[in-house]
Amino acid sequence: MNAKPPYRPRMSQSGLEATHRILALDEQGAEREIHIAGERALTIYIDKVELLTLMTMGRRPEELVLGYLLNQGIIERLEQVRTIQVEWDVEAAAVVTDGSIEGWQERLGRKTVTTGCGQGTVFASMMDRFDAIQLASHRYTQSMIYGLLDSLARHNEIYRQAGAVHGCALCRGTEVIDFVEDVGRHNAVDTLAGRMLLDGLTGEELIFYTTGRLTSEMVIKVAQMGIPLLLSRSGLTQMGLEMAQRVGLTMIGRAKGKHFLVFNGQQAIEFDQRPEDRHPRAGRTHREEG
Amino acid sequence: MNAKPPYRPRMSQSGLEATHRILALDEQGAEREIHIAGERALTIYIDKVELLTLMTMGRRPEELVLGYLLNQGIIERLEQVRTIQVEWDVEAAAVVTDGSIEGWQERLGRKTVTTGCGQGTVFASMMDRFDAIQLASHRYTQSMIYGLLDSLARHNEIYRQAGAVHGCALCRGTEVIDFVEDVGRHNAVDTLAGRMLLDGLTGEELIFYTTGRLTSEMVIKVAQMGIPLLLSRSGLTQMGLEMAQRVGLTMIGRAKGKHFLVFNGQQAIEFDQRPEDRHPRAGRTHREEG
Repeated sequence: MNAKPPYRPRMSQSGLEATHRILALDEQGAEREIHIAGERALTIYIDKVELLTLMTMGRRPEELVLGYLLNQGIIERLEQVRTIQVEWDVEAAAVVTDGSIEGWQERLGRKTVTTGCGQGTVFASMMDRFDAIQLASHRYTQSMIYGLLDSLARHNEIYRQAGAVHGCALCRGTEVIDFVEDVGRHNAVDTLAGRMLLDGLTGEELIFYTTGRLTSEMVIKVAQMGIPLLLSRSGLTQMGLEMAQRVGLTMIGRAKGKHFLVFNGQQAIEFDQRPEDRHPRAGRTHREEG
Repeated sequence: MNAKPPYRPRMSQSGLEATHRILALDEQGAEREIHIAGERALTIYIDKVELLTLMTMGRRPEELVLGYLLNQGIIERLEQVRTIQVEWDVEAAAVVTDGSIEGWQERLGRKTVTTGCGQGTVFASMMDRFDAIQLASHRYTQSMIYGLLDSLARHNEIYRQAGAVHGCALCRGTEVIDFVEDVGRHNAVDTLAGRMLLDGLTGEELIFYTTGRLTSEMVIKVAQMGIPLLLSRSGLTQMGLEMAQRVGLTMIGRAKGKHFLVFNGQQAIEFDQRPEDRHPRAGRTHREEG
């Protein structure tokens, strides 16, 4: 079996430390050393043409750039990327392509600048491809979900110490394949998309976990990655739900400890490990839902 | 005193309900009715030219659009806006200007599409104006901070029931002037900027509160609004801190109950109400910091 080794672009390894120590005054007026998350500007250039600037912790910038290009529909295949060179001195990521992705400026130029969480013109261009997505149909057991939440809790612990921001994970069954945190959860998603592309992972056997809310953009990206189950510690928005319904994505939110809520794809879940119901429904508040 | 009434653009009143009821299955396999946050696409047109699409809860869309235009530097004065008409049927906000803001397409066209939290080309154009900002110099007492946190806790309670997303508030002393939540905290900031512009509020006597993290974009926006104190329930990033230091913004994070950390502007705080120190420093963990 003289298999050709899988293609890999040439990439720098310019990952940064996750956290920095600073001094702050606490409520006693006393100095305390605390850890804070790094945040750096990284401007992406494609064949020397400026694309945009991301704000990132910069831990895995090459995979972030790769996944960003994929999730935005700028590239479709790994072979289109020859090199990704990240230089923090100039806050730049230089991408050299094989010359096959001309026309991206015109396609992206249709709309303009956007900002922060939940504001995205990305949305419009993503929707073009969204309705073509076909997700695999699986059944999941409650005991698998609990096993996975246990595995994730260990990761969350590590990352919380390093200065918690937003975390996302690629999982298979109860195993956590990769866990990424960044100052924006979209960066974390994009980094994992880059990892999938590099390693040739297909989404259909995977589960996507996020600490963040299930907004439309999050649901669309995960569906684009071909992953049929999306699990979150947080809640969802109305449009996140609509998108999940439209594409048949199984969506579980408020997943923490023994609690969770199945927002979409209820038929995909086998309730094989119901916990003791310590909080009868009538007594529950809905304070933290949404 | 025959003062001319202050100028107001003509604006629709197309605010939407905050939450929607849906059914989800809980971990018992039982149906539960829960509240989820609305999320709608809203495309802004300036004099019939498309600017971009925001994802928003849509509670105060006219103020959101106004504040967005201001924070992006597209408008500078309220008088430049004649009407803002929001029509949810077509998911559009039509802005008619006085014709004085030509050239915005060229200015914004320099860069391209961006996405989700923490990713923003906004950053570059904001920095142009950032270094010119002069913030007022104030001193704040610990007792005022505690009084304000008490006032905010009541607001948080209301909003948490309605489906918690990200919240931001404009405050004066211990009083909460306005509290906004949206699917993205940048929308909440922009809505408050719109309110300030409409009501002629200047930032120097105000305090800005957010439930979210103090990233660079958040710090830059609040400084642009002329507000000298930024208070958050969450932590900060390295670049958020750098921006605050650069412009002399007093920044307090991890503010909850009797705890807080002064990240920048330590000299501005008078410690007049130190709580009993129940957790000696040596025993503290830094798990939730950053």
